[in-house]
Amino acid sequence: MEEKLKELKQRLQEINDLDMIGAVLNWDQSTYMPPGGAPARGRQMALVSRLSQEKFIDPAVGKLLDDLEPYADRLPDDSDEARLIRVTRREYERATKVPPEFLAQFNAHGSESYQVWIKARPENNFAAVRPYLEKTLELSRQYANFFPGYEHIIDPMIDMGDYGMKAASVRAVFADLRAELVPLVQAITAQEPADDRCLKQHFPEADQLAFAVDVIKAFGYDFERGRQDKTHHPFMTKFAFDDVRITTRVKENDLGDGMFSTFHESGHALYELNINRAYEGTPLGGGTSSGVHESSSRMWENIVGRSKPFWSHYYPKLQAVFPEQLKDVPLDTFYRAINKVQPSLIRTDADEVTYNLHVMIRFDLEMDLLEGKLAIKDLPEAWHARYESDLGLRAPSDVNGVLQDVHWYFGLIGGMFQGYTLGNIINGTWYATALESHPEIPADFAAGKFDTLRNWLTENVYQYGSKYTTNELLERVTGRPLNIEPYIRYLKTKYGELYEL
Amino acid sequence: MEEKLKELKQRLQEINDLDMIGAVLNWDQSTYMPPGGAPARGRQMALVSRLSQEKFIDPAVGKLLDDLEPYADRLPDDSDEARLIRVTRREYERATKVPPEFLAQFNAHGSESYQVWIKARPENNFAAVRPYLEKTLELSRQYANFFPGYEHIIDPMIDMGDYGMKAASVRAVFADLRAELVPLVQAITAQEPADDRCLKQHFPEADQLAFAVDVIKAFGYDFERGRQDKTHHPFMTKFAFDDVRITTRVKENDLGDGMFSTFHESGHALYELNINRAYEGTPLGGGTSSGVHESSSRMWENIVGRSKPFWSHYYPKLQAVFPEQLKDVPLDTFYRAINKVQPSLIRTDADEVTYNLHVMIRFDLEMDLLEGKLAIKDLPEAWHARYESDLGLRAPSDVNGVLQDVHWYFGLIGGMFQGYTLGNIINGTWYATALESHPEIPADFAAGKFDTLRNWLTENVYQYGSKYTTNELLERVTGRPLNIEPYIRYLKTKYGELYEL
Repeated sequence: MEEKLKELKQRLQEINDLDMIGAVLNWDQSTYMPPGGAPARGRQMALVSRLSQEKFIDPAVGKLLDDLEPYADRLPDDSDEARLIRVTRREYERATKVPPEFLAQFNAHGSESYQVWIKARPENNFAAVRPYLEKTLELSRQYANFFPGYEHIIDPMIDMGDYGMKAASVRAVFADLRAELVPLVQAITAQEPADDRCLKQHFPEADQLAFAVDVIKAFGYDFERGRQDKTHHPFMTKFAFDDVRITTRVKENDLGDGMFSTFHESGHALYELNINRAYEGTPLGGGTSSGVHESSSRMWENIVGRSKPFWSHYYPKLQAVFPEQLKDVPLDTFYRAINKVQPSLIRTDADEVTYNLHVMIRFDLEMDLLEGKLAIKDLPEAWHARYESDLGLRAPSDVNGVLQDVHWYFGLIGGMFQGYTLGNIINGTWYATALESHPEIPADFAAGKFDTLRNWLTENVYQYGSKYTTNELLERVTGRPLNIEPYIRYLKTKYGELYEL
Repeated sequence: MEEKLKELKQRLQEINDLDMIGAVLNWDQSTYMPPGGAPARGRQMALVSRLSQEKFIDPAVGKLLDDLEPYADRLPDDSDEARLIRVTRREYERATKVPPEFLAQFNAHGSESYQVWIKARPENNFAAVRPYLEKTLELSRQYANFFPGYEHIIDPMIDMGDYGMKAASVRAVFADLRAELVPLVQAITAQEPADDRCLKQHFPEADQLAFAVDVIKAFGYDFERGRQDKTHHPFMTKFAFDDVRITTRVKENDLGDGMFSTFHESGHALYELNINRAYEGTPLGGGTSSGVHESSSRMWENIVGRSKPFWSHYYPKLQAVFPEQLKDVPLDTFYRAINKVQPSLIRTDADEVTYNLHVMIRFDLEMDLLEGKLAIKDLPEAWHARYESDLGLRAPSDVNGVLQDVHWYFGLIGGMFQGYTLGNIINGTWYATALESHPEIPADFAAGKFDTLRNWLTENVYQYGSKYTTNELLERVTGRPLNIEPYIRYLKTKYGELYEL
């Protein structure tokens, strides 16, 4: 069995290396690649992805798993080896259900669709993307049907990003959350909006970058094990256990945009950088779900990075970097500016409170599309209608409507949005639980120290990688399943104080 | 046959893509990778290299070639398809003779050896590298012995970089060249050395980079199809037909170092960027030999970039970029400074005239090592002795002696040096031949125009990629084989004028 486990790990290491090679190719494409490189790069990424897939669905991997499962059953359920074998089996079952020809077709369609969207968006040309989106919907349904027996057609897609979650459970949680958020948003928007003009001055790029880098170093992001580059859309990517990179963008007329994006991506990176090193190169060696990943990114972006104690330490430093712009802006004004709540059209720019309403709109539209209740041709108007009813706003065109972000234009429809809000809910849970054993955490922030929180996250969440599912992690840490209460309490306390509700 | 040729091309495209993926991994390692990425990166590069090799030596490729060869024989000898089949066969025969286990061992040894050298060089510790170098020599002999029937043990190594050349022919050409160079060097060094203090002032990095980029754009390097980054050792690398990148280094206290390195690498890139697009993804789609590659890099670095007409156009521009440093330096002083001839210890820093003597020393030492006439333990002293006899200099330690550059510390011994001097000889031939039909070329340089030369090179050399061997190219262009005469004439004319010989 030792030998077989060793062979399995060797095969998984190669598959993992191929995936990480694909990540390098993608990173280069987003950061530095000259325009001429695009056609070959698409082909090269497809090749690496196909080789990885071929090596994973090799029947020899299935045979090794068959042989190893009785061995896993004799180990404690909680042992790393038993978990490795079971998680690999789960991934193997999923991978072998999808024919390679489908994957090839899906990847080719994704690239094409993306290229069409890139052109169509600035031209407000939904008609151009419509046939691609129709094909994407058809492919998404086909994908779901490789997993017969689902409760809801979106479930197989949710399963990819947030294993263990289902349409029914997500819908129930979202309904509860919505019932709390809508009155909160109403109470806040009944008041005068916060004044955020202090953020909209001219802030030179290099200074913005240097400040944010100092902060994430203090969070614990190690530039010996990563780096930051600029891209149009910020992201985190991993090439190795000790090479986890982030990207950001900077707007010189908006201080918040680049800074919070850097904090956010550093949160993703801190998760990956603190997984148990013994899991490297196996399916246990990455974050367990998009929900838990977002719980880390939004922890460092929002719960830490938009908190009063954090800025009581960092605001004087920020003022020293931008004396002209900020010397006459009191901390309280700045704090209110970075926490301004205001319904808006763009999800990625939304504040902490309204953000989840954007996600719910997308999630509901996806379910309607997949269920056949909504046709692609009617999607732009359905979008506008929901924004009007939920956020009281109507985009002047599809540019800030259904064309606003890339998500539906390179991947499946379904499975990509729920993680954002699950992450918010879960980070509320982590933070409340961490505070129970470490009430000194906010005082630490005020001293520029983040070890207590990061170590708590490492000990309770990060280190386990994909050993436990989202639900298992929640149960282990809190003794109960997903629960919106701590997150709602966090929002109500913070925004209650800010808006004197 | 159409079908079989199509299948062969598809397989070759995948193999080529894997090689280019390896190049991306290597580029990232040299430019941006954080230190933590190193161990995984070595493994990932080895994986890609192995997959490429496995796909190439697949017996199915041999079978396709067997089937296609009679078809190639019926085509005109000069047809692209016939050449593709024959060049692929040649590469296939070479690749299949080397066992994959040897390659794996060789690659692992190369990485280890490189790591040891990186540490040993600053410590002047030849003892540390000695056992690795002994192993490298042993592996080099093993490699040669996969090709029984060679005339000289170095021939299989020369064959890799400069197909068609052999120890005997290289030795004969080098002897002739040496007979001409030694008196030339003596005549020059008998005079007062040129004053190059104007190059050794402070030149801010960003301005140096911007100037050199302007120049290589004028040469024809297209930043839509490439880019330049900084590395410790400059190089050219190719990720696709339309993504050919270069790297450079900049020394703020030495204007020549970065600038000529940029010109040099742009010459390598111009070759790759102007190959017939129809050859993309096949063994015809890259430069034909290291000699012809160097003929292009040294053409743009030296024959163009260190010429009087070139600087009659660019020197006022350079003075405008660095007015403080250069306003009182006349063009003639600058021109003499960038063409200063002086025996030195470091090959890569050597001037046009003495450079070849460095190469010959290395080539002779390699032959002595491979023939068993020289033991690794005696190499440092043999090095010093040759530098004393040939260049009249003795390095104070091995740092600037046998440890000076990476070549012997990651690859084979043999096959890597002759290309540098072959390139010099060949660029003399190209330039003389181009001038015969385009006597206006120097006047073009003086007008900042480089199209005539570049187009001549594209038409006669670049476009063919590896369709023709070095010797075939020379025969096609000049009607005769490799010949040192035009190069010697170039050197004697240029340096005769400079030093009034």
